[in-house]
Amino acid sequence: MPKLILIINDDGITSNGIEALAEAVSDLGEVHVVAPDSPQSGMGHAVTIDDILRIKKFNFPVEGVTAHSTSGTPVDCVKLAIFKILDRKPDLLISGINHGSNSSVNVIYSGTMGAAIEGAVENIPSIGFSLLDHDPDADFSASKKVARMMCKEVLERGLPKGVCLNVNIPKVSEKELKGVKICRQSDGYWKDEFDERIAPNKEVYYLLKGTFTNNDKGQDTDEHALAMGYASIVPTQFDLTAHKVISEINSWGLNMDDK
Amino acid sequence: MPKLILIINDDGITSNGIEALAEAVSDLGEVHVVAPDSPQSGMGHAVTIDDILRIKKFNFPVEGVTAHSTSGTPVDCVKLAIFKILDRKPDLLISGINHGSNSSVNVIYSGTMGAAIEGAVENIPSIGFSLLDHDPDADFSASKKVARMMCKEVLERGLPKGVCLNVNIPKVSEKELKGVKICRQSDGYWKDEFDERIAPNKEVYYLLKGTFTNNDKGQDTDEHALAMGYASIVPTQFDLTAHKVISEINSWGLNMDDK
Repeated sequence: MPKLILIINDDGITSNGIEALAEAVSDLGEVHVVAPDSPQSGMGHAVTIDDILRIKKFNFPVEGVTAHSTSGTPVDCVKLAIFKILDRKPDLLISGINHGSNSSVNVIYSGTMGAAIEGAVENIPSIGFSLLDHDPDADFSASKKVARMMCKEVLERGLPKGVCLNVNIPKVSEKELKGVKICRQSDGYWKDEFDERIAPNKEVYYLLKGTFTNNDKGQDTDEHALAMGYASIVPTQFDLTAHKVISEINSWGLNMDDK
Repeated sequence: MPKLILIINDDGITSNGIEALAEAVSDLGEVHVVAPDSPQSGMGHAVTIDDILRIKKFNFPVEGVTAHSTSGTPVDCVKLAIFKILDRKPDLLISGINHGSNSSVNVIYSGTMGAAIEGAVENIPSIGFSLLDHDPDADFSASKKVARMMCKEVLERGLPKGVCLNVNIPKVSEKELKGVKICRQSDGYWKDEFDERIAPNKEVYYLLKGTFTNNDKGQDTDEHALAMGYASIVPTQFDLTAHKVISEINSWGLNMDDK
């Protein structure tokens, strides 16, 4: 039986990034796309628990690729694909190619990575791909090359339990790309502001306007690799336990009767 | 100046859980609530980047507590509070008390914990509280006792950089509660199904219907502590890097030119 490859994204099923990803891997197995019917950027690991979900067949523009759109989030798409749409468990889940970076702390806000992490929860080897270019018509050639290589590797080797990969590709041409580097997540954050505006009905509303800031000067980070012209690969887990801190908090001697 | 305590939740500003939390800490400092104007369960770390946000003053039913509701997610509430509503940085961010468990893998889907994790990103000592009881009129007495103790401790001691606390309280009375245990996140998952239904207009729609399964038999987990009648405290981080896996993937010798 051919390998079954499930493709998800958060920019929506009509985005150029998901088409590029399907093109890059269409000959590596049986490819099925399940993606949101509208943009779902910034949805992180959101899941729809109090509302209905819809599924529609979609005529995907890559030969041999079958597809469904859904009304849900990227994580909903993973659950719907596995538990409702597909007839067997995928051998590989890939998400993207996202239009914009998911390096550093962006991983926690990212719908693209939400889907890849959900794949890891479901024990499916999973990879998220993101290109550092928000242009809808961005050049995906370097991203496609990286995605194809990584999918072949992970189809062969699998991934450790509980771990998926967060792959970011710099905004360079295929020829300029230096290679790939295995990294840790850089310790960056968003310095946020809100634009305050007034609607015609006099109501005040706000629009998020953030600036990403990276204070982490480590040379082993995704931010550093990307700045040097490499694609970054961060092994990413959903065990959020800060294991090193357990003994410190144990030393507090917390006791209900003291307070 | 009194300590500034910011309270967030995901069940919405009118839920009993957030009122209980405000009551538990109202004398520990200046308390300000910023919470969603409607339920936002399952929103994880979702942030609103493509839509407008609204803020309204809210008459909160606990004396001395000021409050605003917002149209956003729990993480939006944190950002709006810090960058728009409050005039200084909070000394403590607390989220909850959630109606339902956020132990084990639930941490990644949880809006309650999304807010606490966002607090940690903003370098504010942050704690999420959840009670293992979905009843809107649940008994919050044990939860209030734990919340008060933990808030006093963290206001005094702070928390390590990059770490917040995920506190879950079992469904027991204040007297039955055995105490608290510092734990790791249990390796559980949701076995999901979708109910398939037909709307009056003949359209098919789906509703998520999951069953939580814990195969992790470790006695150092949150699931074990809760089953034994203890409140569980998991130090929780937003560095998702699987540090132990970096060397393994380096050993693959990934090379763009091979593929």
